[in-house]
Amino acid sequence: MATVPAQRAGDRPSTALLTDQYELTMVEAALADGSANRPCSFEVFARRLPDGRRYGVVGGMGRIPDALARFRFGEPELEIVSRFLDAATVEWLREFRFSGDIDCYREGELYFPGSPILSVRGTFAECVLLETLVLSILNHDSAIASAAARMVSAADGRRMIEMGSRRAHEESAVACARSAYLAGFDATSNLEAVRRHGVPGAGTSAHAFTLLHTTDGGANEEAAFRAQVAALGVGTTLLVDTYDITQGVKNAVAAAGTGLGGVRIDSGDLGVLARQVRDQLDVLGATGTRIVVSGDLDEYSIAALRAEPVDSYGVGTSLVTGSGAPTAGMVYKLVEVDGVPVEKRSAHKQSRGGTKRAVRLSRASGTVVEEVLYRAGTPAPDPGEFEARELLIPLVRGGKIADDLPSLEDSRALLARNLVSLPWEGLKLSHGEPAVPTRFAAAAEPTITGEGWRQ
Amino acid sequence: MATVPAQRAGDRPSTALLTDQYELTMVEAALADGSANRPCSFEVFARRLPDGRRYGVVGGMGRIPDALARFRFGEPELEIVSRFLDAATVEWLREFRFSGDIDCYREGELYFPGSPILSVRGTFAECVLLETLVLSILNHDSAIASAAARMVSAADGRRMIEMGSRRAHEESAVACARSAYLAGFDATSNLEAVRRHGVPGAGTSAHAFTLLHTTDGGANEEAAFRAQVAALGVGTTLLVDTYDITQGVKNAVAAAGTGLGGVRIDSGDLGVLARQVRDQLDVLGATGTRIVVSGDLDEYSIAALRAEPVDSYGVGTSLVTGSGAPTAGMVYKLVEVDGVPVEKRSAHKQSRGGTKRAVRLSRASGTVVEEVLYRAGTPAPDPGEFEARELLIPLVRGGKIADDLPSLEDSRALLARNLVSLPWEGLKLSHGEPAVPTRFAAAAEPTITGEGWRQ
Repeated sequence: MATVPAQRAGDRPSTALLTDQYELTMVEAALADGSANRPCSFEVFARRLPDGRRYGVVGGMGRIPDALARFRFGEPELEIVSRFLDAATVEWLREFRFSGDIDCYREGELYFPGSPILSVRGTFAECVLLETLVLSILNHDSAIASAAARMVSAADGRRMIEMGSRRAHEESAVACARSAYLAGFDATSNLEAVRRHGVPGAGTSAHAFTLLHTTDGGANEEAAFRAQVAALGVGTTLLVDTYDITQGVKNAVAAAGTGLGGVRIDSGDLGVLARQVRDQLDVLGATGTRIVVSGDLDEYSIAALRAEPVDSYGVGTSLVTGSGAPTAGMVYKLVEVDGVPVEKRSAHKQSRGGTKRAVRLSRASGTVVEEVLYRAGTPAPDPGEFEARELLIPLVRGGKIADDLPSLEDSRALLARNLVSLPWEGLKLSHGEPAVPTRFAAAAEPTITGEGWRQ
Repeated sequence: MATVPAQRAGDRPSTALLTDQYELTMVEAALADGSANRPCSFEVFARRLPDGRRYGVVGGMGRIPDALARFRFGEPELEIVSRFLDAATVEWLREFRFSGDIDCYREGELYFPGSPILSVRGTFAECVLLETLVLSILNHDSAIASAAARMVSAADGRRMIEMGSRRAHEESAVACARSAYLAGFDATSNLEAVRRHGVPGAGTSAHAFTLLHTTDGGANEEAAFRAQVAALGVGTTLLVDTYDITQGVKNAVAAAGTGLGGVRIDSGDLGVLARQVRDQLDVLGATGTRIVVSGDLDEYSIAALRAEPVDSYGVGTSLVTGSGAPTAGMVYKLVEVDGVPVEKRSAHKQSRGGTKRAVRLSRASGTVVEEVLYRAGTPAPDPGEFEARELLIPLVRGGKIADDLPSLEDSRALLARNLVSLPWEGLKLSHGEPAVPTRFAAAAEPTITGEGWRQ
């Protein structure tokens, strides 16, 4: 996972205050009554997928190690928390280092309702502190990756450029670009994502550049195009819809010649315009010039353009807002205390409490049939006729981050393979049930007996 | 505006790469053909409000000065952009300092379709570079502030706590907490917002703390409550819905006495439960104990609880996702080049291009009747019988940030006044038109003649 090396953590801002006050007051109360050091197990999971979605994509896991490495209470952080915590808690925080174990689903793994995508084990105090930061990263990045994966499926192999930074918080935008690339987008406009995560960059020109070439004599689109081609070469993409598109295409080929790399259409009925522009380009001899479309695209409008001569999509707002589902809604729940499974409203009854592990079962063809959860420490359920793949990998052991974690490129490749493994209806854009069921194999009988996980 | 002092900018990360690659390629092309230094004017506005919303709240303006101060291309940033820019552009960026003028609507000001909430003037190159960063901040923070203001109206004076950090990107969460406070929330759970923006903090305990007090002998809610009260005092708020709420309330009063500060209900039918719990508390003698409710609240469910004995609301997901409108959809458009108004598809025609100023007209009673835009450099339109208030204030002059900008507290007070000034239907939660019309006073005749601004 492409993270900044741990030794640089000290130079960079602490993440320790990117958390909720109540986690610290809980630590204070638990330190006072002696329960702070009880061995605990927390899990991150989503109770349900966003309305009608058939799968979720685990995003953000590659950002967790860096965020954890920077989770330190230095003097500036202690000054804030000492306003409401007692001295003993402040001293405890000063020495705080997470020393437990964390397992995770790989970034790019699919998840379904109940999938235990993160399993955190240690003392109560050290585990509870991580709740908000871990959820912020996973909820945001998974929401974006999940939406982006649907767009990539809809684009059916055409080039996808992420360009939504302006519609998202400036730091969220960087993570959006990363999640889009994870999901199969080819490039981003966001330069910080290029620097921080190695995502390929892309970008050419906007309406402002064409409008800039206005004088008292009027607009001069061709002058703008000539300036862009002179600076960026004929391989550039010219934006042809500032004034009249037909004239814009004519001006573009006049400025760049028939070797022009591409034209972009950012408004109007993109399907109709793409056909018109393709015909016009072909007549002008620019048969190799690509057509890029953008402008409020989402997975549905991308799919609707499949039959049109579109070579590339630029996607903004719908990507960075999760296309209707801007957060994944994952929760971080205490599931086991001192070996005893716990769960809200049903502690000590048969329970989905307890530390869990997960396998995904597939046919020999590779098609996934179901996900099975089972209690950690019990044997994995018998897969019968199916192939079983363990889904949790070690992320942290004894406070140390594993050193063989997947890179962003690995995760991108994993997701591409995972999407192929879904039953065919799993990739449908229409609303529906999760593509595969998640089942709970009771500890006593490690076979598939539980009802569905949905709540 | 509560920003970090400019002299500290050098210590902190550059914001220069929180931008789109095409802004830099445009600068390169404009430097090459000599148009980079043309005097230009850009404006930020929203073409429309989110579906059915009646007003927008300007958020994020107080974060712009700090972001601008950090917009510098140092060696690490130049290394990235030199991969795709020519040497002349890289050298130009090395020396880059914004030297122009910026006017803005105050943070906490209301906006409507077409309101020119930011006016940026300088050379093309220096203005175009700021597009993405400025939009990211304003689109995000305005979306959150706009949703939050509706929630505050719905709560009708009851205490509001923002607790959505876990459902948002970790840095977005900080800005969400700030925007919620701007809009009238009383406190946040987010500690970084406490540190960075001085927002009051709040927080007590979660289900995990109650579940922690489970042993082989079973759950022990009262032990958890006693531990919390011992550490945090009887004024704390106890979470009573982990197991059975009636037993939870009994345990809470047993642990804290009738002086218990509050109880929190986080699930179930909150209206029904609030009434039951109020009755039970009163019977137990805890007549002063407050009831806090949380759990997937939005402005509609908050309003639906108005008749119930609820003292305080905790709001999470719907706040940080803008309650259905996670971005404000504002754009940053070139409107004037060398004194000539420009606009996409209609440059040089009668145009809403051109640098604009804005006044809001009110009756003597204080009720706003409309917003009027007019060309900068022309006289303000005659307000007739109404009071007129200029909406744009200087934010930057000659590259220097104004030193008398409103603080976050000032902006919070401004918004509270602004909401009172809307026509009564403007605060309705139901879908509708913008609360007041925005009109364009043509330059030639500075009176209200334009049709509505909607597109």
